[in-house]
Amino acid sequence: MQLIEIKELLLSHSKREGEQVVLVGSFKSIRSSGTIGFIAFSDSTALEPVQIVFKKENTPNFDEISKLPLSSMILVKGVLRNTPGKKQPFEIQASKIVVLKEADPSYPLQKKAHGSEFLRENAHLRVRTNKFYVIMKIRSELANAFFEFFKNNDFLYVHAPLITSNDSEGAGESFEVISPNDQNYFGKKASLTVSGQFAAEAYAQGFKRVFTFGPTFRAEKSHTSKHLSEFWMIEPEVSLMDLDKLTILIEQCVKHAIYYLFDYAKPELEWCNENLEPGLIDKLNNVINNDFPRVEYREVIEILKKAVAEGVEFEVKDIHFGMDLKSEHERYICEKVFKRPVFVINYPKDVKAFYMKLNDDNQTVAATDLLAPGIGEICGGSQREDSYNKLLTRCLELDIDPEFNNLQWYLDLRKYGYYRSAGFGLGFERLLMYVTGCDNIRDAIPFPRFHGQLDF
Amino acid sequence: MQLIEIKELLLSHSKREGEQVVLVGSFKSIRSSGTIGFIAFSDSTALEPVQIVFKKENTPNFDEISKLPLSSMILVKGVLRNTPGKKQPFEIQASKIVVLKEADPSYPLQKKAHGSEFLRENAHLRVRTNKFYVIMKIRSELANAFFEFFKNNDFLYVHAPLITSNDSEGAGESFEVISPNDQNYFGKKASLTVSGQFAAEAYAQGFKRVFTFGPTFRAEKSHTSKHLSEFWMIEPEVSLMDLDKLTILIEQCVKHAIYYLFDYAKPELEWCNENLEPGLIDKLNNVINNDFPRVEYREVIEILKKAVAEGVEFEVKDIHFGMDLKSEHERYICEKVFKRPVFVINYPKDVKAFYMKLNDDNQTVAATDLLAPGIGEICGGSQREDSYNKLLTRCLELDIDPEFNNLQWYLDLRKYGYYRSAGFGLGFERLLMYVTGCDNIRDAIPFPRFHGQLDF
Repeated sequence: MQLIEIKELLLSHSKREGEQVVLVGSFKSIRSSGTIGFIAFSDSTALEPVQIVFKKENTPNFDEISKLPLSSMILVKGVLRNTPGKKQPFEIQASKIVVLKEADPSYPLQKKAHGSEFLRENAHLRVRTNKFYVIMKIRSELANAFFEFFKNNDFLYVHAPLITSNDSEGAGESFEVISPNDQNYFGKKASLTVSGQFAAEAYAQGFKRVFTFGPTFRAEKSHTSKHLSEFWMIEPEVSLMDLDKLTILIEQCVKHAIYYLFDYAKPELEWCNENLEPGLIDKLNNVINNDFPRVEYREVIEILKKAVAEGVEFEVKDIHFGMDLKSEHERYICEKVFKRPVFVINYPKDVKAFYMKLNDDNQTVAATDLLAPGIGEICGGSQREDSYNKLLTRCLELDIDPEFNNLQWYLDLRKYGYYRSAGFGLGFERLLMYVTGCDNIRDAIPFPRFHGQLDF
Repeated sequence: MQLIEIKELLLSHSKREGEQVVLVGSFKSIRSSGTIGFIAFSDSTALEPVQIVFKKENTPNFDEISKLPLSSMILVKGVLRNTPGKKQPFEIQASKIVVLKEADPSYPLQKKAHGSEFLRENAHLRVRTNKFYVIMKIRSELANAFFEFFKNNDFLYVHAPLITSNDSEGAGESFEVISPNDQNYFGKKASLTVSGQFAAEAYAQGFKRVFTFGPTFRAEKSHTSKHLSEFWMIEPEVSLMDLDKLTILIEQCVKHAIYYLFDYAKPELEWCNENLEPGLIDKLNNVINNDFPRVEYREVIEILKKAVAEGVEFEVKDIHFGMDLKSEHERYICEKVFKRPVFVINYPKDVKAFYMKLNDDNQTVAATDLLAPGIGEICGGSQREDSYNKLLTRCLELDIDPEFNNLQWYLDLRKYGYYRSAGFGLGFERLLMYVTGCDNIRDAIPFPRFHGQLDF
């Protein structure tokens, strides 16, 4: 008899009433009265377990089964019975249970609920809990969403190098890479990249539309719920694109991701809505059903000044042109003023990176951040400075030596056909937190790395 | 008037005879007689350039255009004329050409052909050549092929960590990662991963079918055409799977990738067939149109012994059980004996990694390599040792201390429901070389990293 998966039975159980089936999987919990037992059984192909009913009268190894440690692997042969009206749509009435592998009783994830910290200490096992099954399933579908979007829109997938001799932000806390057997392996100082953007810009000059999707690194010591030492970024880049078109691209891209999750991870989103963030589904619907307005940074400053005057209590109350917006300001703008995602555009040059295009006012750059209710900044991007001389000037103003930082090639792109280019960077885990309601970035990646942590 | 792309015109030119179009792009070459000029023009959306014809009589800036350096960016307004019978299906007769950005005359990629080494020194520009346009386009579609395959077959995409405290192969040449501001940033020695397999195994216990696709690293000093310090690996892992089913999965996966390229990168494959490897298309057809036989390692040894006896000249002539097959042996088996891709199975345990499942003969492990004509090994995989005690014994035999190597969690997986698991690793650049005919792995990745090289 062929093995069948729970995923398949969930699609076809109504046509299988009374059918003999064989399943292999582990059990998540078990209770037994002495003559009849119930196993919550999972073969990892679906979120909810299936109930296996087994009776002493026809299960010779009834006592062995009743005492098996959780996570033991069993083969179950039995009859499918639909159970209309119950939470689970069907159960299996077992005629035979074979123990394939008895688990060690030390299995840490016993039936009781476990704290996030305990689960992080068991990151090799936590994917077997509902919470991590759901988050990691959505993570995978979120990646698929972007691949579909970029494929449909003719973007080339580019793998930016991870080991690099330059540093996209001009400063920053980078990890160094060394070969223990050869201190001069690369012939120069090697770091782990903080961004794939520069490689993407080079490739956008050859392919027009490109994107990177890969890991990036920060050696910062933050112990917050929003920072990791290693995280994944998506960085699309399009030549000939200006800031205005860039905001359209970002809006399409973010909306597509959410539509895709509604198509391919609806049960998981509903689980999150119920267990992680009440109102999550409404929040996501609010994103896809609204146009995202564009608002000038200067206008944001006026709005915030007015808010302070009207008594809104910000921690940072000194609102002025040139300031970097804090999360509280960003959230006020999108949550209280616009009540939907909003693009802030044209930031002061001094709060943004050196490669952004200087506007004609000589004060602002063609940059945008997308702010969304419930989180603040989702992603940011810019039109790039396309003038070699202006870019060089900006480097020198900021004490970035192109030769020393191995950035001459990046500046040189401007010499050869670089008319316009724009792109954005999206922190994959941050977006995953937003769409799941997961409140700690350490739970949004399989094996988190941060200051003081390198298990697994 | 709306801007249009060459990609779009290639699909619709026959219906656009005489239509006014506006294009923006750069020119790859230009020739001019003094009264009429011809520009090979590209907007990066197609491989082949389009010819722009412009005449002195209606182009006031004719002389300026004629002298423009290559890679300058221009806007062209003109009329589309189909050119049946010519290599390019249409041309544009310009009525107006606007110089958007004049390139610097130092542009390194002038019209003459350039050597691979020169192009590597200009890796930020080489994507603008036909060869790299084609290879990188196929690279992107090859990635899409795998994402489609895994999506269709219910695999979860898992991001294995890059910074790690353990080393999949138990030894190996790993890069170390340090934080310049805090020598003890992670509290233990940190390395760049050589494989995502262990993370994949943990996740396969929670999701049944998973795959990783990410960068891996080797600090080796090889200066060959097949080695990089940083390269991308695909590592699928499936719980409950045995070696036999694994070979079926590999065969489906490799064939799907090639079918996908025929669907989405046919012109690029044909370019490779013409310019990089004559016979490439036939080679790939030979892969998808044949079943891949399975042959025991022991049988391979017998075949090779017989070949030596019959006078086949191998560099390594001492053929015996326990030897590691060299590339010459692998190629002989698939090219001369089977004349198609072939799985070799059940290798001696001492030539394979510690985590592979020991067979009942106590001599061999449930491992397989897929060998293909024209290259030798394409990928390798194994059923994993599922017995905690056997795995621990094997570690100790090989002097791998699980505690010291931070592998205890990996061994512990066997305690909790780990009945079976199998998976394989596929070097993405190696496969890309195989499907393009590209003969140097440094040309199969956007910015190659290897011993002594860290530009860009």
